[in-house]
Amino acid sequence: MKHIISIDISPCHANKIGPQHGFTDIEFKELTKSIKQYHNVLIKEREEKKYGFFELYKDKATHNKIKEISSKFLGQGIENLVILGIGGSALGITALNTALNGTYYNLLSKEDRKGYPRLFVMDNIDPVTFKRMMKLCPPQNTLYNAISKSGETAETMCQLLIVLQELENTVGSEKIKEHLVITTSPRGENAPKSLLHPIADKYGITQLEIPLNVGGRFSVFSPVGLFPSAMLGFDIEALIEGCAEMDTLCSNDSLENNPAYKFAGIHYILDINKGKKISVMMPYSDRLKDIADWYCQLWAESLGKKEDIKGNNIFNGQTPVKALGATDQHSQIQLYREGPNDKIINLISVENQNEVLLVPDILNEISELEYIRGQSMNDLLLAEFQGTKDALTLSQRPVIHINMKEISEFTVAQLLYMLEVATAMAGKLYNVNAFNQPGVEEGKKIARQLMLEIKKNKV
Amino acid sequence: MKHIISIDISPCHANKIGPQHGFTDIEFKELTKSIKQYHNVLIKEREEKKYGFFELYKDKATHNKIKEISSKFLGQGIENLVILGIGGSALGITALNTALNGTYYNLLSKEDRKGYPRLFVMDNIDPVTFKRMMKLCPPQNTLYNAISKSGETAETMCQLLIVLQELENTVGSEKIKEHLVITTSPRGENAPKSLLHPIADKYGITQLEIPLNVGGRFSVFSPVGLFPSAMLGFDIEALIEGCAEMDTLCSNDSLENNPAYKFAGIHYILDINKGKKISVMMPYSDRLKDIADWYCQLWAESLGKKEDIKGNNIFNGQTPVKALGATDQHSQIQLYREGPNDKIINLISVENQNEVLLVPDILNEISELEYIRGQSMNDLLLAEFQGTKDALTLSQRPVIHINMKEISEFTVAQLLYMLEVATAMAGKLYNVNAFNQPGVEEGKKIARQLMLEIKKNKV
Repeated sequence: MKHIISIDISPCHANKIGPQHGFTDIEFKELTKSIKQYHNVLIKEREEKKYGFFELYKDKATHNKIKEISSKFLGQGIENLVILGIGGSALGITALNTALNGTYYNLLSKEDRKGYPRLFVMDNIDPVTFKRMMKLCPPQNTLYNAISKSGETAETMCQLLIVLQELENTVGSEKIKEHLVITTSPRGENAPKSLLHPIADKYGITQLEIPLNVGGRFSVFSPVGLFPSAMLGFDIEALIEGCAEMDTLCSNDSLENNPAYKFAGIHYILDINKGKKISVMMPYSDRLKDIADWYCQLWAESLGKKEDIKGNNIFNGQTPVKALGATDQHSQIQLYREGPNDKIINLISVENQNEVLLVPDILNEISELEYIRGQSMNDLLLAEFQGTKDALTLSQRPVIHINMKEISEFTVAQLLYMLEVATAMAGKLYNVNAFNQPGVEEGKKIARQLMLEIKKNKV
Repeated sequence: MKHIISIDISPCHANKIGPQHGFTDIEFKELTKSIKQYHNVLIKEREEKKYGFFELYKDKATHNKIKEISSKFLGQGIENLVILGIGGSALGITALNTALNGTYYNLLSKEDRKGYPRLFVMDNIDPVTFKRMMKLCPPQNTLYNAISKSGETAETMCQLLIVLQELENTVGSEKIKEHLVITTSPRGENAPKSLLHPIADKYGITQLEIPLNVGGRFSVFSPVGLFPSAMLGFDIEALIEGCAEMDTLCSNDSLENNPAYKFAGIHYILDINKGKKISVMMPYSDRLKDIADWYCQLWAESLGKKEDIKGNNIFNGQTPVKALGATDQHSQIQLYREGPNDKIINLISVENQNEVLLVPDILNEISELEYIRGQSMNDLLLAEFQGTKDALTLSQRPVIHINMKEISEFTVAQLLYMLEVATAMAGKLYNVNAFNQPGVEEGKKIARQLMLEIKKNKV
């Protein structure tokens, strides 16, 4: 039995939280029809290769190339893996790393890291952070992975120029290829050029390809996420199996039985009919907190659109919010329970943590500690989850409960793949193009113009 | 000239983004009157010692005690400082540490840390994280600081029992006091009991006091935040001066000249009159990212209230969202520009970073890189900030721009103190009690009950 993620939407039903905030049977029935219809559209577009993310897990040639290249670099004594990338180029591997390597991974000894490198994801252009990373990672035992589909991402290219210079000065021009891998769009007559192509050519750098029909936020199972995963020793086959398993689970057109469509459908109906404009993602596990961050990009950038596909102004989009249980019970739950009833709260529980931590049976003289003494931290975390879930229901707040039996390559891939399919379906329901991001261009243009003016004024 | 934080609300004016989304002169004038009136109420309540956070920076006796105790522990070769605390007991020191020690601080060598300990903030009950912390921090050179006002915080007490047992087993019962400091409510006949008092007594543990009129989310300048700050070598005097400076700046009743009232007033008026239900805090500096997190608790827990002070149901509260520039331009800006116009976006820029990182003038053959080549990463970050700010204005999205000349104890304390005063004023404007959190009790009760049932079933 491999179905080890389940998703429970019953706490969003009107019979739990009332028809003003929960979905009714009639709404569910109507939604079922829309889902069936859009499922067929998605299937057709998928067959037309409109979206590549669905099929990434099937690309054995790429997986083999990734395994081969990563083995080569791991054999060269790489101690630090540094990702130069932002947005979709950074969030996927950060999510996977936190989930599978846990908090404080970089502080572990090499032995406790099983010989795999530390990971530094440079997803910003903060000079203080970047200088510190360079201090911590001597180029001699560092592998950089520059990721940008177009090679036009200002932040990544700025980082790359600095790193190239540093490599020239330390290992020397000839050996740059032993310390840098480029992940960008494919070569080919019909493919758009990437500014990273001439750089790869100049230094003979290994290049990995992001399929043209895969956008940044859907790229975690492309080489963008899989090459660093292999470098960190993650089980690529198990990641792939997780995707395959979830693809099978999501292949039916039934709102009731398709986890991705459940997630998308309930978000849509509660947004449109009940004014839930905010989608909170709150896992009860430190290891899942960066998956919440990854989700925030996926949901925001895919569905936050001014126009529908016909060009009508709609200013669509739920605002995703990341939270962490139990931590944010002491920060956000006051608002979630007593503030405006404008949120869907996605709670993720994990049944089996990898470790059990017992609370010793001491300080018997303090009777108020009876409920934790001699129990486990694991039990307390699950009880807090349950308490929060029930308290939210008492306040008529809609909760979607995602349960994972454990955290592993297999389950994490399932969760990510499910959320990607959910996002594609949500795009259909909202009638927007979930695969572009026209709103980010203006700021880039202004920044570029400013930089040119600064340069002119310097001369 | 010490005023090195400025706050610009002009991008929220109707003449920039239209009267549907921005405030008008008439609204500003009315708001000015309310602010004057509530200023007098706050002053009066402050004199009555209703809120302690205003005066924390004046408590020299406590500051001296903190300095003395921290010197003693630092002299004992402490290498790791571990905070056992959640919510307000964790967010303040995390914000200060990231701001003043920067990203990857724990990875630095002891020399680069100037001999100060690493910091681990245990703000969750994740067994995997906690076990890893215990592995990384041998009790022999670790100081734990357990923080809970009542000693009834389940998460913190669960952690403390585990740590006490570990200390018993390693350094032994007698030496527990050399590895543990307790921060809790004061002793005294009129003070409520804390469960931490008998524990402090049993082992002779040093105790620091949280004044009764200071709540968790307003406690960063109490021993909750200041003792760990001293242990990390932060300049306590400069933190205090920052508070004092901001207190002076916030002592006038003018909407125009009081930075805290500007922040509170504009948030209030744009929420109530223009439907901006979400407050985004987006600093352009990695070092400020956990201040955004701290703000999220402050704003959410203080203003997210079901009832106004007269007991009428109002379900009040903006939802705070943390973001990070430039990173989240590639994640959230699409939504902020093209999604529902339901947000105020607070952008924080930093004029002088501590480091300058030059982009080398290489790869001249790629003309598209002209705008970054030979410039600095610092310039690019500021240009991206400006580009985002202007692009948001073009989309008629209200922006509050907070500018900091630099990041230091002095400026960071100013920023935090300003946001605390703003929250107190916002409570007045919204007519809610900003200093309680009734909505978090229910979940705690259920969790406690569940834990007792688990225990019963085990027996």
